[in-house]
Amino acid sequence: MKLVTFEIETAHGPEPRLGALAEGRIMDLNAADPTLPADIIAWLELGEPAREKTRQALLSTGTQRFSHPVNEVRLLAPVPRPGALRDFFAFEEHARQGAARRKEVLAPQWYEQPVYYKGNHREIYGPNETVPWPSYTRKLDFELEIACIVGKKGRDLSPEQAGDYIAGYSILNDFSARDIQKNEMICRMGPAKGKDFATGLGPYLLTCDELRAADNLAMSVYVNGAQWSSGNSKDRYWSFPVMLSHVSQEETVYPGDILGSGTYYKGCGLDLDRWIKPGDVIELEVEKLGRLRHVVGQPQAQKRLVYSGKSSEAKGHGSHR
Amino acid sequence: MKLVTFEIETAHGPEPRLGALAEGRIMDLNAADPTLPADIIAWLELGEPAREKTRQALLSTGTQRFSHPVNEVRLLAPVPRPGALRDFFAFEEHARQGAARRKEVLAPQWYEQPVYYKGNHREIYGPNETVPWPSYTRKLDFELEIACIVGKKGRDLSPEQAGDYIAGYSILNDFSARDIQKNEMICRMGPAKGKDFATGLGPYLLTCDELRAADNLAMSVYVNGAQWSSGNSKDRYWSFPVMLSHVSQEETVYPGDILGSGTYYKGCGLDLDRWIKPGDVIELEVEKLGRLRHVVGQPQAQKRLVYSGKSSEAKGHGSHR
Repeated sequence: MKLVTFEIETAHGPEPRLGALAEGRIMDLNAADPTLPADIIAWLELGEPAREKTRQALLSTGTQRFSHPVNEVRLLAPVPRPGALRDFFAFEEHARQGAARRKEVLAPQWYEQPVYYKGNHREIYGPNETVPWPSYTRKLDFELEIACIVGKKGRDLSPEQAGDYIAGYSILNDFSARDIQKNEMICRMGPAKGKDFATGLGPYLLTCDELRAADNLAMSVYVNGAQWSSGNSKDRYWSFPVMLSHVSQEETVYPGDILGSGTYYKGCGLDLDRWIKPGDVIELEVEKLGRLRHVVGQPQAQKRLVYSGKSSEAKGHGSHR
Repeated sequence: MKLVTFEIETAHGPEPRLGALAEGRIMDLNAADPTLPADIIAWLELGEPAREKTRQALLSTGTQRFSHPVNEVRLLAPVPRPGALRDFFAFEEHARQGAARRKEVLAPQWYEQPVYYKGNHREIYGPNETVPWPSYTRKLDFELEIACIVGKKGRDLSPEQAGDYIAGYSILNDFSARDIQKNEMICRMGPAKGKDFATGLGPYLLTCDELRAADNLAMSVYVNGAQWSSGNSKDRYWSFPVMLSHVSQEETVYPGDILGSGTYYKGCGLDLDRWIKPGDVIELEVEKLGRLRHVVGQPQAQKRLVYSGKSSEAKGHGSHR
């Protein structure tokens, strides 16, 4: 099934609701069956009973009752408030070409374990939202990735076990400020300000009963309607079960946690040396997962992320504006 | 004031409570004044009114009523469930020596902006807890850091504004698996498995009314009672207001968010080339912030974080055990 989070107007303002998408309509699951929660993470925590009740609700109430035409509601990200976001770097050619641009060879460690950085789980943008152009970047970029959504709490999972802990898949846009990211990665701390202003997620979560593995899906980037590149998830070196197993060693993963795959080679402007502009419409398409659309915002007053250190720290004076 | 989170036994199991530490006793704030919350993040969200009520409660009820001797309760981390953990690398000599070990010079970008990685906000260990020895490391290490706790929601703060968004300070132990961390940082993704199994925090949060800035505090590491090193927070290159300002550019920070300072040169075993063992007792002491004690656990079955990639990914076979 295709799960979405959408917004309805209530007496106390807009409120997120969990829905199932079918035949162009979104069924409000909690309205159709009050024993189902209105929040995706609570729904995931309930496990198979919630999935079974949702299937029943879709069969028994049809698509008209408790439902809204998809074009008449505002979609949020299917998991609007994940507890954690980890973003991998799992396509070999994208990693190899990145190293080549630095006149390096991809480190042998890359082939031993799936490396990732931890993204910002609190700046998630849903479908059709305008993503602000960060004041501090001149090189805003996108990355077309597949998102894997964790379905249940787990720890120390083997790769064989980890597949059963995956709830499903969605599309992820790993927005990147390339000038800033480069500086951070030179300092070996992984990207932070280069990534954390926005991550796009949506339009829906396709559950594993309809897509067991996201291992052979066509992927395409469109900017203002023109195709900029295409790829396939089969070129990923690391599978999601291996990535989730790796994350879960000695730490707990929770329902709603997001793993991003990284992009295929040419699934971002950096690999293409082609750059988006304010006002552009970016659409990321993945077979079976739909199309995730965002509008790029207008830059506000330019800032520089450069500060004064120790000599003036007692006064707290920075020069970041 | 010194804020703690401690555990009491209730009919439905142990429950965390917010307390204020004074004269060897912990006053249960919500018991003393039911309009005060029992959770530190809820308390921070209330701002100055909660601080004022807490001061009144401490004055009017004395230290005996609604209170427990500190030695008779189990302390948790003062912020047991922060929404985010960001850990900086703010001591110049520690950063310089790390680069020197790689036969490099510290990147000039390090002096332009305070770089950080995002830690795991969901594996926080309170005072006196036994921290498990991760199955996948042979080089477990500690780092003595100062933690800065965010007091209120903010965004795009200048360094001048950011000081008012700091609630206070505590001690942080950035436990590290050095063999794993090295591999991850070579791949430029910043540490993940090298750090995310455990972060120590405590014993209390000292609020800014008693410590305006954490800029000149003696710091010491003790292992099994023997002093391994000492330093001073004045050797930090970046101040917390600058670090918080930097984080807040184009993203929102929330009450309870933690910023770690990074360690001073020799505030970790890596800098000393001296290594902790299972069963060791690590105590990190910072002037005014107390002493944070942990016991190092016994290693379980050895695993290796090495997996098979693409060729076998359809079968999901890894070799991580």
